[in-house]
Amino acid sequence: MNLLLLPAESLDGQRLRVTDTRRLAHLRDVHRLVPGQSLTVGVENGLMGRARLVSLTPELADFELEHLTQKAPPPLPIHVVLALPRPRMLARSLENMAALGVKHITLLHTRRVEKSYWQSPELDPLKIRHHMVLGLEQARDTTMPKVHLAQRFKPFVEDELPSLMTGREGLVAHPGEMQSCPPPRALDAPPLLLAIGPEGGFIEYEMDALKAAGLKGIHMGERILRVETAVVALLSRLFKPI
Amino acid sequence: MNLLLLPAESLDGQRLRVTDTRRLAHLRDVHRLVPGQSLTVGVENGLMGRARLVSLTPELADFELEHLTQKAPPPLPIHVVLALPRPRMLARSLENMAALGVKHITLLHTRRVEKSYWQSPELDPLKIRHHMVLGLEQARDTTMPKVHLAQRFKPFVEDELPSLMTGREGLVAHPGEMQSCPPPRALDAPPLLLAIGPEGGFIEYEMDALKAAGLKGIHMGERILRVETAVVALLSRLFKPI
Repeated sequence: MNLLLLPAESLDGQRLRVTDTRRLAHLRDVHRLVPGQSLTVGVENGLMGRARLVSLTPELADFELEHLTQKAPPPLPIHVVLALPRPRMLARSLENMAALGVKHITLLHTRRVEKSYWQSPELDPLKIRHHMVLGLEQARDTTMPKVHLAQRFKPFVEDELPSLMTGREGLVAHPGEMQSCPPPRALDAPPLLLAIGPEGGFIEYEMDALKAAGLKGIHMGERILRVETAVVALLSRLFKPI
Repeated sequence: MNLLLLPAESLDGQRLRVTDTRRLAHLRDVHRLVPGQSLTVGVENGLMGRARLVSLTPELADFELEHLTQKAPPPLPIHVVLALPRPRMLARSLENMAALGVKHITLLHTRRVEKSYWQSPELDPLKIRHHMVLGLEQARDTTMPKVHLAQRFKPFVEDELPSLMTGREGLVAHPGEMQSCPPPRALDAPPLLLAIGPEGGFIEYEMDALKAAGLKGIHMGERILRVETAVVALLSRLFKPI
């Protein structure tokens, strides 16, 4: 936790109050914060700054703001459409995408996604939110990503994808495509949409449908990567660090 | 498992014999392979090809080679020096490095590495080998990476690092450095050495020692990434996919 990320309700004038168990335990056991020490704080979808601990009890951490003036880092200009991975891989991929600055994520059903994955408790909105918070706290960002679920491939591609593609360049990562992943671009480059298939890949029908919607097939080299590795590899190849 | 990777002893003329429990279970339960079907095989530190299943029992999978002529993909020309991460992160980082084509890895002690990590069962050579095999099987590669342990920072930097740096460009990834990660290079570019710190980073003394040994500090942007995410992000930013 490199940032104490809090909902706006935690803020009361110059005071910040933390009451949730996970953060309290982390402040006590990992940061070992004592009154008088300060740490980096952020308000959800707002600014970042520093706050000094006034008191810490098992129920409450009471902070006084030193300043709250720093903007969150810029987002990656990308919408990631990810075939729903198996639950543990989903959790890590969500955290990684949040940490890397992705703000728009669609989890998509495809032929090779096991139907049971859609029943996973990891898809509970509170669980998804939890992974987003962990990613933002890791990377020091406050802007909460939005996660959409698209449980039917065809309606998504036919009804939702066209409007998502408006003003965006579309890419679909798939082993064996002719074009290599394009070189890193600046964060103010035109926005992208990137589709990433499941373990085993998109089937031919799905690749055809995505290409018909304007997505360009790209490959990441001859090595086949696990989905969670491919997500990080693609995002860090597509954008320059700032 | 996108490749059935076997030690050279498994090969007997045109026959390949698999007897280990993990692979037998995978062939039966995941691949659901039946006699007559073929899959991609590789010989450790050797060639890759296809083999056809002749018979599958709980003790033995018997394959007949169709061909064994394909070279392993080229390695990444890099030696990664990684501050020993906590055990679960180590496991995933080893697998990811193996999958991405890293062939030389040093696990290093630094001030912010918890000493207990050196007692982890994950450092058992057989465990390390297991993670390497999983990474190679995932990525379809046969060349086994070499993992070195450097349990003392100063002797490593003073006695081993200079010879590792001969003919290599050295980089150390550290948040807050002035220089950004260089653009992706081709796989036939001069070899690199890349040092990656622990959670919490290298301490100043360590950064000074690494820089004195010729490593150049680079950053990956203002976001702070978990070690396992940073490893993948750095490797995929440093090299072009082929």
